Amino acid sequence: MNKDQIPDIIVSRLPVYLRALRHLKTRGKLTTSSQELGAAVGLSAAQIRKDLSQFGGFGKQGTGYNIEFLIEKLRDILQVKQVWDVAVIGMGDMGHALSRYQGFKDRGFRVAMLFDNDPTKIGTQVDDFIIRDAGEMIPAIQTAGIKLAMLCVPAMQAQEVTDRLVEAGVKAILNYAPINLTVPPGVRVQYLDPSTGLQRMTYYLG
Amino acid sequence: MNKDQIPDIIVSRLPVYLRALRHLKTRGKLTTSSQELGAAVGLSAAQIRKDLSQFGGFGKQGTGYNIEFLIEKLRDILQVKQVWDVAVIGMGDMGHALSRYQGFKDRGFRVAMLFDNDPTKIGTQVDDFIIRDAGEMIPAIQTAGIKLAMLCVPAMQAQEVTDRLVEAGVKAILNYAPINLTVPPGVRVQYLDPSTGLQRMTYYLG
Repeated sequence: MNKDQIPDIIVSRLPVYLRALRHLKTRGKLTTSSQELGAAVGLSAAQIRKDLSQFGGFGKQGTGYNIEFLIEKLRDILQVKQVWDVAVIGMGDMGHALSRYQGFKDRGFRVAMLFDNDPTKIGTQVDDFIIRDAGEMIPAIQTAGIKLAMLCVPAMQAQEVTDRLVEAGVKAILNYAPINLTVPPGVRVQYLDPSTGLQRMTYYLG
Repeated sequence: MNKDQIPDIIVSRLPVYLRALRHLKTRGKLTTSSQELGAAVGLSAAQIRKDLSQFGGFGKQGTGYNIEFLIEKLRDILQVKQVWDVAVIGMGDMGHALSRYQGFKDRGFRVAMLFDNDPTKIGTQVDDFIIRDAGEMIPAIQTAGIKLAMLCVPAMQAQEVTDRLVEAGVKAILNYAPINLTVPPGVRVQYLDPSTGLQRMTYYLG
């Protein structure tokens, strides 16, 4: 299967299905249907079936989906059975919160390194980690082979830091700075700035 | 125009266009093309034109888009020319970071109330705000007429708090807890848990 043949919009829904399936599992359920899964994530049953059929289907006519099996398949497809090391750049409030975020456990990620350029922060400890000098970011990330970063620096510095992350070999950036980043082909950016998330919803209000 | 006639996937892209247009504006540009805007957000020129045509177009053949005009139109459509008050629920690391987030300014939002259920946090100050008792959430949000909330409570409490937010009249929830929420029709949830954002990208790695 060529990865680029699957539309990104479908890929973007797989983590949402995975989250919903885990939720059903914690409620003690063993099987689910495209109707039930669709209702949990706000999509039609047809959409669920169509999306999953891109990867081979996984369900049986009449008996639905085995939740544990589908969870394992989605973890496989998303490549999160392994644990990915993630670097956090910018140890302000947001970087601090992300470095201590409890929701990475069992989801395929582990915070591995923290960086800042503020001399009063460099060398201080956050849980098990010492905040490192952002000036050493490129060799440190290269040596560790880290491919994922969460970017929490001020908007003004975001592009310059991104360029250095790309140079260090980072392939995927979760961007919390409220600006658009330019990256070369082969590097991906997801934008998680809260304003954008809220603006998607205010459209429907009032 | 009936709002539900526009597919949600198109609505979801408008804040991204808005962010990119503001970025072009800060670089001193006055006009842009669907090619340039597409390149900035990683979509085709045809997709940009198709999306904007749903709302009437805004561009002129040959001269492209006036950036300031398109920004104002998008702010209108997304209803962010007004400033929306937002409540933050759960003053752990993430709630704390969001309550101090600098990226809401000029984007249509203002943090207005903070809540927690921890007696050691209730009554303490974060910038200009006193953290309120989550037990008083429903009347406080109702009285203030707040329609937006950012949910930063632990996963175990997220659904119960959501039910109370809905009762208080909240119509849009930005959820940072790593679980799926059930809400009645007319209430919207956006999921910003970082694991999901990272999982969208690990699919392509390796």
